[in-house]
Amino acid sequence: MALVGLGATGLAIGGSLANRVDCELIGAVDKNPDVGGKDLGDLLGLGPLGVEVVTEIELLPDVDVAVVATTSDLVQVADTLMPLLERSINVVSICEQLAFPWQSHPELASKLDAAARAHGVTVLGTGANPGVLMDTLPLLLSVLTQSAKRVVVRRRTNMSRYGTILSKFGLGLAPGDFAAEREAGTVIGHVGFEQVIAAVGAGLDWQLDEIVVDDVEPAIVSRSRRQGAHAVIEAGTISAVTHRARGLCGGDAVIDLEIMFGFFDDSDDVQPGDEYRIEGGDQVITLASATGFESFLSTIAAAVNVAAAAVDAPAGLRSMGELPVLALASKGTRMRVEAIS
Amino acid sequence: MALVGLGATGLAIGGSLANRVDCELIGAVDKNPDVGGKDLGDLLGLGPLGVEVVTEIELLPDVDVAVVATTSDLVQVADTLMPLLERSINVVSICEQLAFPWQSHPELASKLDAAARAHGVTVLGTGANPGVLMDTLPLLLSVLTQSAKRVVVRRRTNMSRYGTILSKFGLGLAPGDFAAEREAGTVIGHVGFEQVIAAVGAGLDWQLDEIVVDDVEPAIVSRSRRQGAHAVIEAGTISAVTHRARGLCGGDAVIDLEIMFGFFDDSDDVQPGDEYRIEGGDQVITLASATGFESFLSTIAAAVNVAAAAVDAPAGLRSMGELPVLALASKGTRMRVEAIS
Repeated sequence: MALVGLGATGLAIGGSLANRVDCELIGAVDKNPDVGGKDLGDLLGLGPLGVEVVTEIELLPDVDVAVVATTSDLVQVADTLMPLLERSINVVSICEQLAFPWQSHPELASKLDAAARAHGVTVLGTGANPGVLMDTLPLLLSVLTQSAKRVVVRRRTNMSRYGTILSKFGLGLAPGDFAAEREAGTVIGHVGFEQVIAAVGAGLDWQLDEIVVDDVEPAIVSRSRRQGAHAVIEAGTISAVTHRARGLCGGDAVIDLEIMFGFFDDSDDVQPGDEYRIEGGDQVITLASATGFESFLSTIAAAVNVAAAAVDAPAGLRSMGELPVLALASKGTRMRVEAIS
Repeated sequence: MALVGLGATGLAIGGSLANRVDCELIGAVDKNPDVGGKDLGDLLGLGPLGVEVVTEIELLPDVDVAVVATTSDLVQVADTLMPLLERSINVVSICEQLAFPWQSHPELASKLDAAARAHGVTVLGTGANPGVLMDTLPLLLSVLTQSAKRVVVRRRTNMSRYGTILSKFGLGLAPGDFAAEREAGTVIGHVGFEQVIAAVGAGLDWQLDEIVVDDVEPAIVSRSRRQGAHAVIEAGTISAVTHRARGLCGGDAVIDLEIMFGFFDDSDDVQPGDEYRIEGGDQVITLASATGFESFLSTIAAAVNVAAAAVDAPAGLRSMGELPVLALASKGTRMRVEAIS
């Protein structure tokens, strides 16, 4: 197995993969020349693994699977994926736009699918969201109704474990700066709404007329200083934002999604937590998580749990919904150390 | 498609299948001579469909898929399944013990698997539980943790829509009669705990030492008369029972399940609702349904949604976890009438 991209998330995935008994991490690549030539194990804090980090995909050893953790932008990620597929390497990536790119990036999706098929391998986008929470989980819940009419998801997600990624949400900005940063394209909010809406629509056989992704909006300005794992939200700056998207059918929002991303505090009116509602013709299915799901940990877990499954999946560009549930389930018993911090 | 078993659940499944555009119901069988020779459509209240109900499996026309809704007892169901498989008919059944019979009925499971493979068809047990709620859903949720340590499910299920099936739970019995009825084997509680525990254990790669299914216990004696759809609970009789089961590993209940089945009332301390807890090494995943899931409707939905998927599944005895989530998702758009009562 190889790891592509050694940012915070890539390293967390690497640390987990290095600890598994069902795979062997024998390659790593990152464009950053500062890590080139170093031993992957040293970067992971595990001591030498005998795996030298290279700075070019071409220098990776031959592997069965590569886990790609670089960027959310599929156009950029595709430049990394294509040479891997052409070497007959199965690829799993946490790139949000890879989760279900058939509608958002039809030409690129076809190109990746054709390359994967031609080389007998799988390419799969995974993660918590897209990947599980707003696509695969609602699709599974829909099995409990004969006739799903509407899917509504409300998430309020704790972002206090994240660092640099926060700037794309506008967290920590003065309210007066938010609109300008959004206009400039530095504040973009969540990436992946189009993909999960397309995935759910396709999974339910719905013909959507349109997918609408709103602009991300400020939701809470903090009255106190809030300390996260890698960042601080100063008093008077934005501590939560709301991002909404809808899949329309006949003018009706049959898929209705909203995520609030925040550094939450007991003084806030809202707290982290997720709500699911599948409106069926026969019954309404509701589920709620009182605390929500740790986005960072969940994304790493999905990538690690699914990585080995990509080898067995049919060749081509696949989505999480195309994999058997057993292939997605946690196989934590395949880890050397049971305790995970 | 053919329907095998025309009890209350079989008829509800039939009514739904008859309304679908992606399948054609061309055969029906029930041992009951009273319905033999009648038109299936008349029994479904839809008017004649031109499908004569037969009383022997052998008299069914050739079909791609048969949906079997007869009994929870796999030994009995197998006598129905074998002749269907030998005619190369894919089979989906709501028999709870078919959901994952590899540990509870290893010889029969191997025999069904071999017959299905030899004839190039699939045999699959489905339903709400087993099928989704205590097996496939927890397995899917486990993808969010790198290392699942423990699965806990608590269900409190409304039984007021059921009729004759209530007697197997002991609902409506005087408290003094409960133990004797249980001893006599007429009160057995939930069927399917062994199967879901085995399915979850296998899905997580856990080696379970033992599966323990407790005796079903009385939980609430009603102080008032309670009217259900097909049954009445008299004051002074049992209105709720609790049934528990565990999968043990090293003496620890790593899978811990409990269901309360009841005719609930506002005066009860408990109300219908389900709770899921997946304890991971990295995070604890909790989900709750404030109202729970209608067991009868959910079982029918699962059978109807999955029936067509059995044709595409790999030959052999399969479990729901082996199917892609997309194959399980509601395809209600394939129904002629959108509104379902």
